[in-house]
Amino acid sequence: MPIRDDFPDYLLAPDPRGSALSRAMSGIDQNGQAKNINVVEERPLTIFLNSQEIVTAMTIGDYPKYLALGFLYNQGMLSGADDVSSVQYDDELKTVVVRTKSQTDYEEKLKKKTRTSGCAVGTVFGDMMDGLQGVTLPAAEVRTSWLYALADKINRTPSLYLEAGAIHGTVLCQQDRPLVYMEDVGRHNAVDKVAGWLLAEQATAADKILYTTGRLTSEMVMKTALMGIPVLVSRSGFTAWAVEIAQDVGLTLVGRMRGQRFVCLAGHERLIRDADVSISTDSASLDSGR
Amino acid sequence: MPIRDDFPDYLLAPDPRGSALSRAMSGIDQNGQAKNINVVEERPLTIFLNSQEIVTAMTIGDYPKYLALGFLYNQGMLSGADDVSSVQYDDELKTVVVRTKSQTDYEEKLKKKTRTSGCAVGTVFGDMMDGLQGVTLPAAEVRTSWLYALADKINRTPSLYLEAGAIHGTVLCQQDRPLVYMEDVGRHNAVDKVAGWLLAEQATAADKILYTTGRLTSEMVMKTALMGIPVLVSRSGFTAWAVEIAQDVGLTLVGRMRGQRFVCLAGHERLIRDADVSISTDSASLDSGR
Repeated sequence: MPIRDDFPDYLLAPDPRGSALSRAMSGIDQNGQAKNINVVEERPLTIFLNSQEIVTAMTIGDYPKYLALGFLYNQGMLSGADDVSSVQYDDELKTVVVRTKSQTDYEEKLKKKTRTSGCAVGTVFGDMMDGLQGVTLPAAEVRTSWLYALADKINRTPSLYLEAGAIHGTVLCQQDRPLVYMEDVGRHNAVDKVAGWLLAEQATAADKILYTTGRLTSEMVMKTALMGIPVLVSRSGFTAWAVEIAQDVGLTLVGRMRGQRFVCLAGHERLIRDADVSISTDSASLDSGR
Repeated sequence: MPIRDDFPDYLLAPDPRGSALSRAMSGIDQNGQAKNINVVEERPLTIFLNSQEIVTAMTIGDYPKYLALGFLYNQGMLSGADDVSSVQYDDELKTVVVRTKSQTDYEEKLKKKTRTSGCAVGTVFGDMMDGLQGVTLPAAEVRTSWLYALADKINRTPSLYLEAGAIHGTVLCQQDRPLVYMEDVGRHNAVDKVAGWLLAEQATAADKILYTTGRLTSEMVMKTALMGIPVLVSRSGFTAWAVEIAQDVGLTLVGRMRGQRFVCLAGHERLIRDADVSISTDSASLDSGR
């Protein structure tokens, strides 16, 4: 039974009418008239690894467990699903405790923080780069017709982004099917939630495509590669380092995708151009500029 | 002597042709044709406070000293300009050392990190909220005609955002004049650079307006208030907590500004609607969706 009749592929998709995720607020418009708009909620969530407090993340609060799992995994603090013994969320305290079978001691790591361009407090930058050393991404085939279909479906999926603004979306896809659409006020929360979902569901990453509304930065590329996903796509632009890392790890990196136009700066050998690009049907996409 | 003949108000404005800030990279387009595009650089910058390594920020690298000063100030690690004895940047090591007259010891604070929605590793969340306790923002008058003029000028200012995509801009303004336009790959770097500029130049904040291309989140609002700027404007959307904080500290918060439309969710008492909104001239702005 699909969760959305209109978009039957989704396993998880945004619920714009989820009452806990946004709120009506009142103000005035340019004419001085009273105006009510829906704005997205933003709340702190404190993530613990065993008994150690790791970080407080600001999040829309829809998937605290996936966020915690994905965050810790992307920081290199979890080796994998096997290592996790429990994940407990306390809605009153707004905390998630992830417990592992192995012992952990991250006090030293927590001393060295990297503030990346992409909203990730606590990224132990050196560890992420190290984590990439052993990464090999699968050959995989990526049809451009899939990318166009994905962009079209994702742009038309009702989301908090469309309703209330102010948030980023990252969607785990397979071929031309969007499967898991995560949103959050920071684009790195959204990608961490996808990582957490992959971990919790013990799903395959090698045959997936990651689509994001956000910029293609070094951190986005690293996280995608660490998840084992070989393709990352965005309608937004790139940074040079993101491109270099993608080239190094063999990730297919497609950006500035609007309508049928795109630029691929890494891993273009995976691309199969099977769509007819002479039909210039720019879908009614949210052209977010750059 | 203005730095830009076409936009004479600017004291600091982007230099899209600044060769160190972006780079041509080659790939392929949707037709499989070779394509060269300009992409923005992203580099690590390690910030020290006295002898203590605080954080490594990913930045485009144009104003390392302002970034360091502003970051530390917004974290509550600097009391003000008077406290700073020197700021040294080492271009080879990509480090900035900010030295203060008073002693500092932030090892404890560094243990508690907040990952916010807005890209700020190392935000000591509790400290920021505490820092807001004593904040009173000035009455100030904000004419809507200024806001429209600012948006128009800022949208037309050549910037890395327009050229190479992938970055956020934050502009310190006075009335209808944009003065200091900072960009970076993360929106919180851009606002920290503005804070650093205000500190280094010992400029008045009370008569300024802060304009940003990014989302109005709790962290953006807190930093604006901590800088003493009473007005924050964006073409993007809000989060609920950002609005609550703005209401608490008495900040004027204007968002979703496109053409002549906007929504003000806090501090509307400062607004003076002096523009004729019957003329629906949507400027050729970068409508970034939400």
